[in-house]
Amino acid sequence: MKTINVGILGLGTVGAGVVKLLLENQSLIISRVGACLNLKKAADIDVRKEKELSLPKGVFVNNAGLVVNDPEIDIIVEMIGGEKLAGDLILKAIENNKPVVTANKALLARHGNALVKASEKQKVDLMFEASVGGAMPIIKTIRESLVGNQIKSVSGILNGTCNYILSKISDNGTSFEDALAEAQASGCAEADPGLDVNGLDTAHKLAIVTALAYGMKINFDDIYIEGITNITPLDIQFAAQFGYRIKLMAISKNLGHAIEARVHPTMIPFENILSNVNGTLNAVTITGDEVGEILLSGLGAGMMPTASAVVGDIVDLARNIMANTRARIPLLAHQPGQIRAIPILPIDKIITHYYFRFAALDRPGVLSTISGILGNYGISLKSVHQKGRKSSGSVPLIMLTHRALEADVISALKEISALEVIQETP
Amino acid sequence: MKTINVGILGLGTVGAGVVKLLLENQSLIISRVGACLNLKKAADIDVRKEKELSLPKGVFVNNAGLVVNDPEIDIIVEMIGGEKLAGDLILKAIENNKPVVTANKALLARHGNALVKASEKQKVDLMFEASVGGAMPIIKTIRESLVGNQIKSVSGILNGTCNYILSKISDNGTSFEDALAEAQASGCAEADPGLDVNGLDTAHKLAIVTALAYGMKINFDDIYIEGITNITPLDIQFAAQFGYRIKLMAISKNLGHAIEARVHPTMIPFENILSNVNGTLNAVTITGDEVGEILLSGLGAGMMPTASAVVGDIVDLARNIMANTRARIPLLAHQPGQIRAIPILPIDKIITHYYFRFAALDRPGVLSTISGILGNYGISLKSVHQKGRKSSGSVPLIMLTHRALEADVISALKEISALEVIQETP
Repeated sequence: MKTINVGILGLGTVGAGVVKLLLENQSLIISRVGACLNLKKAADIDVRKEKELSLPKGVFVNNAGLVVNDPEIDIIVEMIGGEKLAGDLILKAIENNKPVVTANKALLARHGNALVKASEKQKVDLMFEASVGGAMPIIKTIRESLVGNQIKSVSGILNGTCNYILSKISDNGTSFEDALAEAQASGCAEADPGLDVNGLDTAHKLAIVTALAYGMKINFDDIYIEGITNITPLDIQFAAQFGYRIKLMAISKNLGHAIEARVHPTMIPFENILSNVNGTLNAVTITGDEVGEILLSGLGAGMMPTASAVVGDIVDLARNIMANTRARIPLLAHQPGQIRAIPILPIDKIITHYYFRFAALDRPGVLSTISGILGNYGISLKSVHQKGRKSSGSVPLIMLTHRALEADVISALKEISALEVIQETP
Repeated sequence: MKTINVGILGLGTVGAGVVKLLLENQSLIISRVGACLNLKKAADIDVRKEKELSLPKGVFVNNAGLVVNDPEIDIIVEMIGGEKLAGDLILKAIENNKPVVTANKALLARHGNALVKASEKQKVDLMFEASVGGAMPIIKTIRESLVGNQIKSVSGILNGTCNYILSKISDNGTSFEDALAEAQASGCAEADPGLDVNGLDTAHKLAIVTALAYGMKINFDDIYIEGITNITPLDIQFAAQFGYRIKLMAISKNLGHAIEARVHPTMIPFENILSNVNGTLNAVTITGDEVGEILLSGLGAGMMPTASAVVGDIVDLARNIMANTRARIPLLAHQPGQIRAIPILPIDKIITHYYFRFAALDRPGVLSTISGILGNYGISLKSVHQKGRKSSGSVPLIMLTHRALEADVISALKEISALEVIQETP
């Protein structure tokens, strides 16, 4: 039987998961590929990993260069994370004619175009299913299953940490801070949760799927990003009263002349299946002109779900090797010459529905003043909710709008914020 | 640019959809494949199809043999349906070294092993994503994305007609007959709905995914099948009272030594996302040992969703042709030599929870007699619900059990049915 040699760079959580999976499910993988996927070398700067992962003798090295330059290694798996070192090693592997698997969404979002260009020049495959949505085969579905469709939109919940925190606030009425602490204690949030809760991680993933879906270059910089740090239990409670659950959504839409691509907390109606995707689960809906809406859901992160996606990519490359082919599918889902420069619409050009919460002094005429200002900007209201009168201090005034232009909303909120009766930033 | 010639057999609903998609989205497909997918010939016995579908001159033929024997045609798309003719034409195409795409689940369920054998012998690809779950990429997910996983179970809602009917009964309290008539009027049930409502269509699909998931031959004959024709609004109403929705489920589980594979109405708890998959939507959950549970949902049938899946397969084959390769992925997801004969457990060996509805005369001691018989067979009760006393006639007595063996349930029901106080078959 043919042996295909795999080299892994980085033995953190996911890298260790890939090692575990390749070793434990080896016979299963042989039955699917018809070849043996042999873990030839695994590199990490931490030499304790060799023992921790019970690596077979001779596999561990503490120099990634020994892996990407090993002429016997057929497939390189980059699991280091970060941008500079990981990117350089991927480029070196490509230069050495070795196909690469990575789950590095930050790298792809920020430097993916250069990596794709290098891969295409060398006709070497670069696979990254595990970079978006962990277990869910989002990239394969867009690149392979929906090829007959003009893709209209890709939207979903792409960060398990944020979804866990929002679910906790929703279920238990805890504060953002307490829910985050709980997420950290349970291991589903990093010690430094910045990338997650400020929406950056979600935006990295959105940049990747947006490029694949519409045939454009990866454009992370123009994505609007708003995280979940300002969400209060009160917001979630009011949303529920109106029949909505708040989720951190990644939203992208193909408007033809331009793309909408944004990450922000979003109110999802109870009857929408996404509102029931809770805890660390992720979910994505992809809408094609022919196929309608498809939903994929599953664990979006974690050691083994992510490792499973990485191994799926390794097997795809191994099947290419067995079939004596390469570069069978264009990396960005469209032929290189067909990738267009479609602009992402600035956020103030977006038209959508809005939820406002004002902390207003409970005085006569407040509602009329606020709704008057909104009306002046052409923003009409769908629902209004005002809590009962308090003897002193502010009361929450909640409004849901019909479709309105973000630029108008920004102007109106600025004017309303300046009112003497408004006690906090809306 | 290279041209890849496609020949279609059968211009019914899905065949016409494939023609439409290939013609309308041609430039989109070119941008993804880097080749032109040219509809060279399309065959149907109904000569009016040429005009109806505005086929380009010279494409229509009324003899399928002219398509499968055309030496210039690279890919054959079988959209005839039925077993004998479709099967013979597929075998002829394979013999002529032409890869084939089909959506014919009945053919695959009953004669798939022979077709797979012929394809493997000739090293010709046979693709059938559209045979299961329409728009949802179930087969690609099992064959390609989850290759690193031991698949534990595949379960779901695989028939849109049944799901539409059950949703109607649930939402409007209409009878099965009225809901069926409504489904037929709205075009989402065939004039002859037998294959759908008796569970056969679901079982065809389950036979296919079960084989792929666990590395076994296609075994349709041993699947237990129960349709939805006996479901009453009363059942759905009681299920709702207990917190469940009734769905026609295809269930398969890998027990290691044997497989469970069954199709029957199933009570799904409200908190399970599948209970919210309504109308003509389908959904499937796939559980892998590493990946956990993945959910796919989308339109399971219909002209364009199914055509989209067919075109996905055509493009996969076209990419093989462009990459100068074939038979890259084993047809049944595992290498031919690794396909095992794993038995499907007879239904009376299944252990699960049960829902009973008895029409019992409202006499003292009835509950005690019935629960006594169940107890004698080791069947313990989780919930019991008895409607208020009627002056005459029977009252519904509803019971939910803990896990019990089907064989014991059958024996107990036989004994209970014989009681004088029981008015209908339970």
